[in-house]
Amino acid sequence: MNIQIEAHNMKLAAPKLAATSADDRNKALLMIADALSKNKEEIFAANNEDMEAATSEGLAQSILKRLKFNDQKLSDAIAGIRQLVELPDPTGKVLLKRELDEGLVLTRVSVPIGVIGVIFEARPDALVQIASLCIKSGNCAILKGGKETARTNKVLFNIIKESVIEAGLPKECLLQAELHNEIDELLACDQDVDLLIPRGSNKFVRHIMDNTKIPVMGHSSGICHIYVDDKADLEAAIPVIIDAKIQYPAACNAVETILVNRKIAGGFLPKLAKAFTDNSVKIRGTGEVCDILSNIADVEIMGEDDFATEYNDLIVSIKLVDNVQEAADHINRFGSHHTDCIFTTEDKVSDYFMQMVDSAGVYCNCSTRFADGYRYGFGAEVGISTGKLHARGPVGLEGLVTYKYKLIGNGHTVGDYASGRKSFHHKDIDF
Amino acid sequence: MNIQIEAHNMKLAAPKLAATSADDRNKALLMIADALSKNKEEIFAANNEDMEAATSEGLAQSILKRLKFNDQKLSDAIAGIRQLVELPDPTGKVLLKRELDEGLVLTRVSVPIGVIGVIFEARPDALVQIASLCIKSGNCAILKGGKETARTNKVLFNIIKESVIEAGLPKECLLQAELHNEIDELLACDQDVDLLIPRGSNKFVRHIMDNTKIPVMGHSSGICHIYVDDKADLEAAIPVIIDAKIQYPAACNAVETILVNRKIAGGFLPKLAKAFTDNSVKIRGTGEVCDILSNIADVEIMGEDDFATEYNDLIVSIKLVDNVQEAADHINRFGSHHTDCIFTTEDKVSDYFMQMVDSAGVYCNCSTRFADGYRYGFGAEVGISTGKLHARGPVGLEGLVTYKYKLIGNGHTVGDYASGRKSFHHKDIDF
Repeated sequence: MNIQIEAHNMKLAAPKLAATSADDRNKALLMIADALSKNKEEIFAANNEDMEAATSEGLAQSILKRLKFNDQKLSDAIAGIRQLVELPDPTGKVLLKRELDEGLVLTRVSVPIGVIGVIFEARPDALVQIASLCIKSGNCAILKGGKETARTNKVLFNIIKESVIEAGLPKECLLQAELHNEIDELLACDQDVDLLIPRGSNKFVRHIMDNTKIPVMGHSSGICHIYVDDKADLEAAIPVIIDAKIQYPAACNAVETILVNRKIAGGFLPKLAKAFTDNSVKIRGTGEVCDILSNIADVEIMGEDDFATEYNDLIVSIKLVDNVQEAADHINRFGSHHTDCIFTTEDKVSDYFMQMVDSAGVYCNCSTRFADGYRYGFGAEVGISTGKLHARGPVGLEGLVTYKYKLIGNGHTVGDYASGRKSFHHKDIDF
Repeated sequence: MNIQIEAHNMKLAAPKLAATSADDRNKALLMIADALSKNKEEIFAANNEDMEAATSEGLAQSILKRLKFNDQKLSDAIAGIRQLVELPDPTGKVLLKRELDEGLVLTRVSVPIGVIGVIFEARPDALVQIASLCIKSGNCAILKGGKETARTNKVLFNIIKESVIEAGLPKECLLQAELHNEIDELLACDQDVDLLIPRGSNKFVRHIMDNTKIPVMGHSSGICHIYVDDKADLEAAIPVIIDAKIQYPAACNAVETILVNRKIAGGFLPKLAKAFTDNSVKIRGTGEVCDILSNIADVEIMGEDDFATEYNDLIVSIKLVDNVQEAADHINRFGSHHTDCIFTTEDKVSDYFMQMVDSAGVYCNCSTRFADGYRYGFGAEVGISTGKLHARGPVGLEGLVTYKYKLIGNGHTVGDYASGRKSFHHKDIDF
């Protein structure tokens, strides 16, 4: 298979999928859900082969856990598809309707982006989820999964593709890349692939971002902060900080650095350190922090440059700052523009923080772990973006659509307006 | 000057500009307008030096015309700034307000993108326009103009920067790059520059797009089509086609290729060819087209691959097709996804065309030259984008903003929702 030729053909076929009705696409999704359920033994058999190979290669237990595709993961995947069917169609929405002049009407309508490349490490459930999101939003997709679950992916892909064709969607709408060198070929398809969505480790996402001219939606790191101001409800802050650190430490929205106002450090740090220690969280801190906690907790000393570290683990960095200005500066300098929070009871201080911190999510008095499409009520999550263009923060289905302008006239020429014979009146029309 | 260090400092200062009020930014714009007017002799003197150097270097008359910055161009630039002041602030708009649960409120607010790099060939008026658009939208800007108007650009930049500082905006918000090698340095600033806007020839824009990892907003080519269906008001079609070709042939939205339904070619092509010839437009066409027009007009024969050509001149390509399907396929294959039009009286046919043609603008019965921010009523035009992400087609001030999510809670933890002790109710709040 030549990915560049296939991607070009897919690009030319993309308008056919975009032209299908929401009903047709939902029908295809329901057929996928049924087919996955009916063929589960075949899926599990393929996954068992993948698991045996991975085990014999000595892969880590944490990775094996992600490769495993069992009854629970299958029913979650199927439930996800059924929920997706219930969501409104993100395409065909009128976003603007304006009469430019008598008989000349402009409409802006949401449409699918076109061709989306999805590259993911391990996790066969990601294949099912992303293929479903693309079908729901009328986008063609090229899927490339990790080699560790090649057998599972192949079975899943074939089930999905057969259902889609049976449902009457264009046969070109889905493509699976199976060979490793096809990743590089896919990354070079900037003329035909409109968007890349990588799913995997920070290193993996960063590699994708660094090696393609195709726009990438995603985040390579999540270095989230909580700043505790001197005027804060300190009792309330501790359980929130613990939640943000330990509720799911491997998540991109888990907190990595705690900034504490110097005025309250003496009283607050020991309590915070005890809570961390009680929850098996290792503490790293500046010299000052080590001094305050010297007889209270084990603290590893750290330098300024270490603050740009994402642990994804039960480890936390602590630093003291003079005020909210210094906190915001530190976050903008060392953070990853993902999600950052302030604890304060002063509106003026939280307003300053939320204005000045340049992140997708700026929070006050709550856990950074809320940064998530489902928690925001988007119904489906395409991913979390730390880029600023197109979509930022948790991205729902609207991240998979763009728009086009339709203009309908009646023999209108620009010359008439340039010469002054006619003029625009730009009347917005209700829709 | 080291552009990478400057860009990094600008990135850290960007939240300061973003935090200024719309009134402050409008005040700065008015001060720029006044200062440009007051210092016009200095501007014209610098421009005269640039013009003399350019003339002695033997630059083409068409380029000299674009380098010239005279009274007319200055008053246009000043009028543009005053119009910009009247437009609503694109930042600070609430886009979504939702109570996730009791006391936990999510708001999505529009904010400036941050740091925008602008690289343009010639045209000193572009410097004034883009600097003003960035200030209006609260974005920091790094400006790099062409070397042919280096003296004019320097004077203009200094006037603008002094006015901005006098108006109280942060001094870091504008930066001028003057050396040619600084373009490459700027293109490498993908960690600190959020968006690049190139203004210039197709080749220039393509070069920028091919040599940076920073997102680029713009278009490298405009290969626009008009398809004339067999059921069309043919009398009305001819003046529109002529308008689309000759009203401003160098524009990206001028038509390059006419597709004609084979059924009407015999009667329609001679009339169309006469109109083109009367307006000094050279015709290129396929063998079939040449045959029909052999005794009527001079037609240069062309091959299939030539259809991906943007002439930007009084030259047009003509091809026959069997139906709207073939027309749409041709456009998706050879076009540049900019603006394409159908002439037809059949709604079913125009619906098909507007659905299937994968372009930023899909038109019916009017000139492709309407693809323009001012004509669409956007009040200001940042550019025209043929990319699909973030902004597509003519882009107004909204193309220079992104959004951030603000979440305000009261000690909320995710653990409470994961354990089922609490649940989200996702109530949208009016705003």
